[in-house]
Amino acid sequence: MSKPLQIARLDANQADFGSHLDALLAWESVSDKSVNERVEEIIQAVRQRGDAAVVEYTARFDGLSVDSMDDLILDRARLELALERITADQRQALEVAAERVRSYHEKQRQDSWRYTEPSGTVLGQQITPLDRAGLYVPGGKASYPSSVLMNAVPAKVAGVPEVVMMVPTPRGEINELVLAAACLAGVDRVFTVGGAQAVAALAYGTESVPRVDKIVGPGNIYVATAKRAVFGQVGIDMIAGPSEILVVCDGQTDPDWIAMDLFSQAEHDEDAQSILLSPDAAFLDAVEASLNRLLGELERSDIVRTSLETRGALIKVDSLEQACEVSNRIAPEHLELSVADPEALLPLIRHAGAIFMGRFTPEALGDYCAGPNHVLPTSGTARFSSPLGVYDFQKRSSVIFCSPDGASDLARTASVLARGESLTAHARSAEYRIKN
Amino acid sequence: MSKPLQIARLDANQADFGSHLDALLAWESVSDKSVNERVEEIIQAVRQRGDAAVVEYTARFDGLSVDSMDDLILDRARLELALERITADQRQALEVAAERVRSYHEKQRQDSWRYTEPSGTVLGQQITPLDRAGLYVPGGKASYPSSVLMNAVPAKVAGVPEVVMMVPTPRGEINELVLAAACLAGVDRVFTVGGAQAVAALAYGTESVPRVDKIVGPGNIYVATAKRAVFGQVGIDMIAGPSEILVVCDGQTDPDWIAMDLFSQAEHDEDAQSILLSPDAAFLDAVEASLNRLLGELERSDIVRTSLETRGALIKVDSLEQACEVSNRIAPEHLELSVADPEALLPLIRHAGAIFMGRFTPEALGDYCAGPNHVLPTSGTARFSSPLGVYDFQKRSSVIFCSPDGASDLARTASVLARGESLTAHARSAEYRIKN
Repeated sequence: MSKPLQIARLDANQADFGSHLDALLAWESVSDKSVNERVEEIIQAVRQRGDAAVVEYTARFDGLSVDSMDDLILDRARLELALERITADQRQALEVAAERVRSYHEKQRQDSWRYTEPSGTVLGQQITPLDRAGLYVPGGKASYPSSVLMNAVPAKVAGVPEVVMMVPTPRGEINELVLAAACLAGVDRVFTVGGAQAVAALAYGTESVPRVDKIVGPGNIYVATAKRAVFGQVGIDMIAGPSEILVVCDGQTDPDWIAMDLFSQAEHDEDAQSILLSPDAAFLDAVEASLNRLLGELERSDIVRTSLETRGALIKVDSLEQACEVSNRIAPEHLELSVADPEALLPLIRHAGAIFMGRFTPEALGDYCAGPNHVLPTSGTARFSSPLGVYDFQKRSSVIFCSPDGASDLARTASVLARGESLTAHARSAEYRIKN
Repeated sequence: MSKPLQIARLDANQADFGSHLDALLAWESVSDKSVNERVEEIIQAVRQRGDAAVVEYTARFDGLSVDSMDDLILDRARLELALERITADQRQALEVAAERVRSYHEKQRQDSWRYTEPSGTVLGQQITPLDRAGLYVPGGKASYPSSVLMNAVPAKVAGVPEVVMMVPTPRGEINELVLAAACLAGVDRVFTVGGAQAVAALAYGTESVPRVDKIVGPGNIYVATAKRAVFGQVGIDMIAGPSEILVVCDGQTDPDWIAMDLFSQAEHDEDAQSILLSPDAAFLDAVEASLNRLLGELERSDIVRTSLETRGALIKVDSLEQACEVSNRIAPEHLELSVADPEALLPLIRHAGAIFMGRFTPEALGDYCAGPNHVLPTSGTARFSSPLGVYDFQKRSSVIFCSPDGASDLARTASVLARGESLTAHARSAEYRIKN
């Protein structure tokens, strides 16, 4: 038996609970000056020297020496080959997941709309997809086929004609599951390029890599820093922090199930965060016992232990309502309502990336195949942001078509306001449209 | 007669048109190291010393010495007083504008949705407003009441319970129109604080200023730098570049009207950009003549001249279709289709912040009172972003509620995929929900 897990136990009614919670949640991503400088240098090199710089950095950072950019391109035929190479079970699971993700995201698609006012003036909003999206997929251990589906499918559902994927293949190691997922998701082109050089190539384009309009997908600190640096030149998704789960349980779910749900988050990395809230103190004890009993069985037990001991907590609350208040304060990425009547709690939840309701909805189902996206706002950013979705690959244009009558009326109002702001050319431009 | 306006004339079919256009559009916001450092210092001071730091910076930068933060708060009664102090015409114009902006934005409100699968599993999306939004309004000459409406009304339509406004009042100068607009827009609290210290107070909160979830609104380089720095702690809207208009005209609109439409953009500031595309070379000459004739009448003729001479252009195209291609390449903030049949061109437009259709829809009407938002993506960012809207003040949470049968099926798929990613705690968490 290994040494007992040292996981924090808190009570939401203790005097200093607020400061304990703040300390537990505290997270600031390190913006390292040397990383910034190296990323800036890579971006400049790719802007100036295009493919040649990309090929050089790939040799240097990924140990992959090629003659030209042509050797870093995988075409659709290669993606289809990957689909043949994985097992039948894996292929079927990927197909089920892709289909469910597609089906859910189709509900998110927005349509253009317009209405006509009595004057004949038409107002509306035209919705169009991006021309081209770029998807970054990490190499090595964090190379997840599920992430390929979650990022590429919404882009395709939005109607993006071209989705370009970047995935490093250090020393030529290719992840066939990732390529198979790209094939099923409809990715159009794949480059085996990673790091800041991949982001720079997507943002500015090179001889071989087409410039995209938005870059999505997770990555290490170099990728994240590069995305932040090119923001404005292209759109980006959120810069993700460590992944977290908050479980609210009434004490009636099998404690082993809850323990494994907490583990499933903690196994991501040492900074991942798993927190359980329950009004039942005995249940918290039972879950702690399950955690200790099951921990040794886990392949990633060292990572899980570090994560739970440094960032995890079991928290006693007065009631499920108080649990929801604490949850709103945390604004968790993943929220499990493992209770008898989750519908009663749902209206109390103001901020969460995804809400997993009932005892039969562990986060893991949402991570892979329930349908909703697994790219979710982390570190409390669910207060103001949303899961990745079709809306991230569509944009809106306002449409205004004034009738002569409508224009004449509006121009009188615009003229008064423009003169109030001392913008007289605005006023005169409006006044030309006033009927005599 | 003043010296003739030197505005660039280009032809979309000349060999080097692409590089001329790129040079014309080139714009990179300067990220000045000393500005970054001063902003970082201000943010740290406000985080550490709260109100006291805000009061000190307000004295130093705005020449406004007060005893305490209480003297920098304007309550609803003060906003209502402003509504009494402006002229009846101004009040009526503001009311018309606020009502039209509200009415248009109500069409943007999104509702929660859900659906039930045959297995009994429920999937959906819950939409909630932000708890609190912060609105920055510049002081001095760039203090626009119309911007107050355009930023605050969508937040209120989204259902944001509390909208907090920051507006500097250098040496105590208050803009009554701005306060009146805040009153009509439903702003809850106003602080007469500006600059990076206002942004820091909104992002982190002080004893008097409540922490908000998102900060919107334009500002100078200090405000923009501070917004970029606090992004992640809070949400922010786009960092705006200089304002621009692209007019496409078939040659049949009064050249004076088009000239004034171009002026209305150019009068904002020296960096603003006004471009006209027409297949009719004689019409371009006529507009150039109008520009020269009308320029001297403008209050802001110096600003307009600099803007048009450094960033403006009159461009000959082959056809209106080619004009649309050039427009898509520019992805303009404002696009006027001043043509006989704008509906025929609309489907060709892929990227634009707002599209003004027909001869009777000058941009100025949209700036003030047509209804759609005047906060629009600048500098080509309409390729991937949208006008400010209600959707910027709402966020989504995915909802997943698996039935026991649904969970059992999904768990089999999740298990295969999780094991393919070597995430075995994910797999086991799913497998607990498989029926025997």
